[in-house]
Parts: sequence; C-alpha cells; structure tokens
Amino acid sequence: MAKEVTKRSDNYSQWYDNLVVKADLAERSAVRGCMVIKPYGYAIWEKMQHILDAKFKETGHQNAYFPLFIPKSFLSREAEHVEGFAKECAVVTHHRLMANPDGPGVVVDPSAKLEEELVVRPTSETIIWNTYKNWVTSWRDLPILCNQWANVVRWEMRTRLFLRTAEFLWQEGHTAHATSEEAVAEATKMVNVYADFARNYMAMPVVVGHKSPNERFAGALDTLTIEAMMQDGKALQAGTSHFLGQNFAKAFDVQFTNREGRQEYVWATSWGVSTRLMGALIMAHGDDNGLVLPPKLAPIQVVMIPIYKSDDERSAILSKMDELKKELEAHGHSVRIDDRDTLRPGFKFAEWELKGVPVRIAIGPRDMENGTVELARRDTLEKVSAPQEGLGKRIEDLLDEIQANIYAKALKFRDEHIVKVDSWEEFKEKIENGGFLLCHWDGTTETEERIKEETKATIRCIPIDSAVCEEEGKCVYSGKPSHRRVLFARSY
Amino acid sequence: MAKEVTKRSDNYSQWYDNLVVKADLAERSAVRGCMVIKPYGYAIWEKMQHILDAKFKETGHQNAYFPLFIPKSFLSREAEHVEGFAKECAVVTHHRLMANPDGPGVVVDPSAKLEEELVVRPTSETIIWNTYKNWVTSWRDLPILCNQWANVVRWEMRTRLFLRTAEFLWQEGHTAHATSEEAVAEATKMVNVYADFARNYMAMPVVVGHKSPNERFAGALDTLTIEAMMQDGKALQAGTSHFLGQNFAKAFDVQFTNREGRQEYVWATSWGVSTRLMGALIMAHGDDNGLVLPPKLAPIQVVMIPIYKSDDERSAILSKMDELKKELEAHGHSVRIDDRDTLRPGFKFAEWELKGVPVRIAIGPRDMENGTVELARRDTLEKVSAPQEGLGKRIEDLLDEIQANIYAKALKFRDEHIVKVDSWEEFKEKIENGGFLLCHWDGTTETEERIKEETKATIRCIPIDSAVCEEEGKCVYSGKPSHRRVLFARSY
Repeated sequence: MAKEVTKRSDNYSQWYDNLVVKADLAERSAVRGCMVIKPYGYAIWEKMQHILDAKFKETGHQNAYFPLFIPKSFLSREAEHVEGFAKECAVVTHHRLMANPDGPGVVVDPSAKLEEELVVRPTSETIIWNTYKNWVTSWRDLPILCNQWANVVRWEMRTRLFLRTAEFLWQEGHTAHATSEEAVAEATKMVNVYADFARNYMAMPVVVGHKSPNERFAGALDTLTIEAMMQDGKALQAGTSHFLGQNFAKAFDVQFTNREGRQEYVWATSWGVSTRLMGALIMAHGDDNGLVLPPKLAPIQVVMIPIYKSDDERSAILSKMDELKKELEAHGHSVRIDDRDTLRPGFKFAEWELKGVPVRIAIGPRDMENGTVELARRDTLEKVSAPQEGLGKRIEDLLDEIQANIYAKALKFRDEHIVKVDSWEEFKEKIENGGFLLCHWDGTTETEERIKEETKATIRCIPIDSAVCEEEGKCVYSGKPSHRRVLFARSY
Repeated sequence: MAKEVTKRSDNYSQWYDNLVVKADLAERSAVRGCMVIKPYGYAIWEKMQHILDAKFKETGHQNAYFPLFIPKSFLSREAEHVEGFAKECAVVTHHRLMANPDGPGVVVDPSAKLEEELVVRPTSETIIWNTYKNWVTSWRDLPILCNQWANVVRWEMRTRLFLRTAEFLWQEGHTAHATSEEAVAEATKMVNVYADFARNYMAMPVVVGHKSPNERFAGALDTLTIEAMMQDGKALQAGTSHFLGQNFAKAFDVQFTNREGRQEYVWATSWGVSTRLMGALIMAHGDDNGLVLPPKLAPIQVVMIPIYKSDDERSAILSKMDELKKELEAHGHSVRIDDRDTLRPGFKFAEWELKGVPVRIAIGPRDMENGTVELARRDTLEKVSAPQEGLGKRIEDLLDEIQANIYAKALKFRDEHIVKVDSWEEFKEKIENGGFLLCHWDGTTETEERIKEETKATIRCIPIDSAVCEEEGKCVYSGKPSHRRVLFARSY
C-alpha cells in the first residue's frame, strides 16, 4: 500500500491534510496560501458547479462577470464593509516590471505606480453596486438577478487546503430588488437552494439559520447560513446568503423610480459558496481508508479492476468489462476500467478506495466462468458476488442506496451530537467533546464574546426551525431570560 | 427605435464599440481597461465554453486550477518568456490596507510589504511548470494533459471591449510529454480543435498556420494560429497553440526517467482562446442592424413576439405561443416569448435584431385565423408566412440553414479578399483596402519588420495548407528567392 493516511482517531486534522494531498485533490503551491486544485479535485468541484449553476438558472438567475480589481476607495464607501474586508487583501500598486538595472531578473518599475491602488476582490459587492448604478433607472429594470463564478483573494494568515486559502474559487450572487420583502425572500430562497444542494447532492445534513449580529457579513442586515457538522464534532459554515438592505445602494447611490413615481434606494442580497465545500465534503464522509464520495458528486462512480494471471485471461476479462461499461454508461453512470498492467489489484483497490469511488467491480477468471462480478461498495466496504446479467439496473439501485446511506450515516452522527444544554458547567464540559449545543442565549454580543473567550465556541446560527428552538428559558451563561435556543459549536 | 448603431460603412470601429454596448454584451468598468461582461454577452461566452470544454475532454484533457499569482522571480526563469510577459502587468506589493491615519478611507499598510512581489498571471506557464516538477518522475507520469479556465491580466495601454482588455477570461491548456513528436502532435491537434470550433460553431472561416519566428509566443519553438478575417478586411488572431520544446522544463528543472532509464527534460505545449473570440464573433457576422449570431452559439435561438390589440387576442396568442414553445424546446431549441406589454412590436423587433437572435416568430390575429406564423430570419432579414403545424421541424431545418448560410457568407467574403500579390507596388496599394495578401517572403525578420513599418501589415501566418502556399517565387519586398507564400494583413 503506497499511500497510507493518518487515522482520524490519531489526529483528525492531520488525517484531513493527508487525505487532500494523497487523494490527489489539491496541493500547496509556491505562492503563500494559494492552492493548486488537481484534476481529480477539480472534477468534483466541476460537478458541484454544474449542479448549482443549473439551480441558479432554474431560480431565474443569469451569470455575468465583473472585474477582478476593486479601486481602493470603493472599499471605504460602505462603513461596515470596509471594517470587514479592507484588511488582509492583495494590493496592486504598480503596473510594470522592468529589467533589473543592478543585476539579473526583473524589478518593479517605480515610474509605473498606479494613481489609486487596486485591491484584488475579496468579494464583489462594491464593484458590482457601482456597476448596477448604471443599470437601474425605474422599477422596470428590477429585479437584477446576477451570479458570477470567480476567484477571490483574502490574505489569510493561517491557511488550510480548501478550508481557508488566500485565493479560492466561488460563486457570488448579487441581486437588486424594488422592495425589502422581495430581497428578504430572495436571500431565504438562496439559502434553501444551498441547503438542498448540501443534503441531496453532498449527502450532508445542515442546520439553516440566521447569524447573530456579531457574525453577520460586513454590510448585511441579516446573514443566513447553512452549518454542517464534521466528524470531529466541529461546525463548518458551508454557505451564506445575505440580506443587505439598502446599504450598498446608498453607498453607491443606486436609486430607482418606483411605480408611484418616487425615487427610492434599491434593496440588495448577496450569497455565495466556495471551494470550501470541498473541505466539507471530505470531512463529512471520509474514513481511515480515504475519501467517501456521494455518487452524485463522484467523477468516477464505478471503477472496474480485472484480476488475471495470463494474457488470455486479461483480454477476455477486459473485453467483458468493455461490454459492461457500455451498459452502465447507458444507465448514465461514469465508469473507469483500470487496466494498468504494472500494478497489482490490491494496490488498485487501495488507490480507488482512497479516492472514494462509490462502487468497485472486480472480475477474475472464476467470475468469468460463473457469469458474476465482485461488487464492493465504498461506504460500507461490503463485498458481494453479483450476476453480470442485469448489472446496469443493479448498479443504478446500488448508487441510490449508497447516496442515501451516506446521508443517513451523517445525519445519525449529527443528531447524536446535537444536545440541549442548560447549565454553564455542562456547556463547558460538553463543548470539549465537540458537537452542537442548543442553548438559551440572552441576545447580547457581550455574552457571545465571553463564551467564545472561555470555550472557543461561537453561535453558529439561530436556527430557522422554530419547533426546535422557540422556547422560553434562561441564558446558559448570564441566566437572563431568553425566548429561543441558538446553536453553539467550535468551528472551522 | 431606441438604440441605433453606427453604420459599418460610416465608421467600422465605432460600429463595433457601439454594438457591444447596445446589444448588452459588455461595458467598461470603473477599473481602467477592465470590462464587465453583461448577462447576454456572458451567455454567449458560456456556450463557447461548454462546447470547447467538451472538445478538450473528448481529446483526453482534464481541468485543473493553478494560482492567480506568480512570484516575480518565476517570470525571469525562461529567458524569452520574461521579455514577452514581464512588462505590463499588475504587481501586488502589499497584503494589507489600514485606516488612513490622516483622514478618511483606507491606505496601504507600509508594514505589510511582501518579501517578493507577486504578478497577477498574464499566462501560467511558469507557475504550472513549477508545479509539474513535482508531478513527474518517470515516463509513466506522462503525458499530463491539463486545461484551466481562468482570468488573466495584461496591462494593455489601449483597450477595446473583448478585443484587448487588461483582464480577460480564457482557457489555457498546458501539456507535458515524453517526446518532442508527441508534443508537436498535441499542438497541432489543438489548433485544429480551435479551427473546427471557429468554422462549425462560430461559422467563421479561419486560416491555420505557423507564426513567423518574430511573432511566436515568448518561449515557444513554434506557434500555430487560427486567423480570421473581419468585415473590414483586417485579420484577427483567434486562437494559438504553442510547441514549447523543453524550454520551460529546463527553466523549472522538470525531468523524467525515460523507458530506457535515462533522465530527460519534458516536452511541452500550451494553447489558448479567450473572450477575444466574442469580438471575432461580433465583427465577423454583425450588420448595420446589430449582431448576427450563429444558431449554435445563440443563447436565444427563437424569439416569439405577439401582435394584438385586445386582451383577448393577447391571451389567445400567448397561449398558442406557449404551445409552440414547448414543441420547439422538445426539438432542443431555446425560445423566448417576449410578452412585455409596455412595448410596441416594432420596438421589440428592432431589439431582438440588435441582439442577433437567429429566428423571430410573430403571431397576430390573422395568423391565428389562418393557423400560420410570420417567420423572420436574422441573417437575410427575409420574412415568410409558415404553417403552425410542423413548426418544430421547420425551425430545426431553418436554424441549420442559417448556421450554414452565415458561414458561407463569411467564407465568400474571406475568399474574395484573399489575393496573391507579387509586386511591392501592388502590395502597398492592395493593403490599403484590407484583406489578406498571399506573398512570397524571404524568411528574414528584417524584411518582415520593414514591411510592417511601411504598411502596418504583419505576417499573420505561414499557412499549413501547402496546396495554397508551396510554390517557388521571389520575396515581394526584397526580391530574394522564396519557397512558399505567407499571409500578410493588417490586424487587430
């Protein structure tokens, strides 16, 4: 076995770092904090993109593209936004290099200094609202429902592949509306699109809720989030959707004439998910053998490995595999035959397990005699013998079953690790084991920050599911009255 | 008619600039030289991307993603590359902004200066070959066939929407091979993929050929190109594919053990097309009424416009249109019903003509009585009455015919404007009218540069079609012997 991965129980964090690299998903680059997304990792991201993009279009959005650079002064226009985003970012100050007059190589040409520095977009609200200004005159021009797929840069000090990188890939939706109600409905609709995607494609349960004021996006009146639980019990914020009120419209003077002929500022939302979802996918389902990919996001759903001694056996098995591959592809599945003849089957088994391929089919000489295959599923590691006859239908059902089982397993784990906690002693004890704590909170930022200082736990969200949360009680920290529970956890 | 476009014959250049903005394809942004690609323009680019991406995958390539930033020193590693690309580029020198101590807004934090400046990628050979170094050990690791869809930045002094912008979107393929022959074959394969795309999807004829040494990509041993003719007779380089030899492998020390057990440097190609193709598409086919989109790239292939006086007529016509839309969609066509009731039909006709929609269907009360529609095709502006019955098949044939006709028209124009020229007097006279001149050339950079100085014409390519070019003769400028004709033109 060439590539062994650290066990989760030994060191969960190292297990993750190990897995990302060994499964060929991504690697660090020569540029501080920036990653290279390798073909296998990118293929998973592409599947995510295609599914999400189709959902955005179904809900009426169109793609567009806005500049990579933002004039420095734009960031200061919205008072809260500047606090959040005009900090650690990549600043372009010059537009030319020249031959080094004092030696080899090139140096920055001091005469090519920009009049105003440009920031590589950390998010695009400012440049987009500066553009929307010219797109909107009357209520007839609204809504604007744009999305862009883009790279963004935030100069993070401590980076981890996919979870927190200086450059990452994402989509950012930016919508403009005539009324507050419509914008709020849009922000809600899109967080639900994310929740649906997480559950039904990533097989990852999420809690949907509002961020506390303290944890909102800089410039938002409300931030909705989907929070997922990783296998170490920590939370991962997997997507957010913001109701921005009229903050950006005011900052960039975007007004429209409403149906009554009066001038009004436009209402806004923005929403995004990023390559961070890759990190969530890996940590939600992976095991000590490697990745476990839900079939709906697996670039290769079925791998076939021939087992043979002679050349004759090899060619007979491979020709049978070609035939079965066609059948499976006709059912819409993606299939790879691993016919590399320099590697032993055991090595191949381990490699495709590491890469999380949902189903493995092995065929040896005895299978050829019996008209069978060996079917192994990645999620449970179970192996069974199955007839070659009717394999297409069998695999179709099996992939559905695996998709459902991966979700069910993650849901069971998640639900076992959500507990209601009503005393501060219990909170401090429970948080050490990870998991989500549903607690009463007095609604103040002060309490929130004290809890964070003492336990590293933050309010992940105020869940929208009122059945779970709406209940009278007392703040777990201050003892003051509270009308609903909120979700606390340590997080990525 | 709200939006009139300058006539081509009045001012071709202004016609183009006008059309890009009025057809809602793109606009200038607040950032110097950077464009906003608007939803309608982006939808065309997306169609291009999907088709090309499928072709890249069919030919065995995988997508990946490499960092936006390149350490300054990387650019100097390959001697010729640095000449070509380490000039006008965006240079990141700092990684933090801070509140302005002397007033409002934010300023660059002087303490956050980077140890080594980063350049926003103008192209990615250097960062990619620095990465490939760790991917290649033996011949078994080859070939590497990667592509990336990305944004790049070249700090152009004079910019034009789509044709030359500081930031643009593109794909860049970067492949690594064990032999020179294989790399040459790859570069040729990919230029042919581009030529096929240009001809069969963009309906745009192209000449495939080699660049002269002087016009090669910086760092390439050979550059293949597709050259298209615009309606003003100027050439537009629409895509290039480079055989890079071992230049980048040597610069980044990428060696492999070959089958004979010896260490060898890896052989490379790179190839790309960009949002410049949008400019080519517009200029190749547009007319004085606006865009003319080939059906295979049109986001909306058929627009339906109801003509009515009463509400009853309106609802009857719209319900018939819904029915016809479903039929057309079942045939795989994209259809838009323009049911806006605040605009007159004439306004709508002009708007969709401006946007280049291939087929317009109008239905009025008389059509409802007769079971007909009015069919108008964008390419010829012809209108005919057609039965509603069997419209799906009729439109399918019509779209094919339009696609073929647009190509035929462009081909005829192109072929009428390629001439063989054998005297310098004739060259100087002919080049004033635009068009491609097929001339003998003595093969020297000196002659090439003199011709450029005197006429602004450059060698667009040495066509690969030897039937057209291989012929003994004398250089049109120097009179020295020549073995083949090359293609001269003024260009974008």
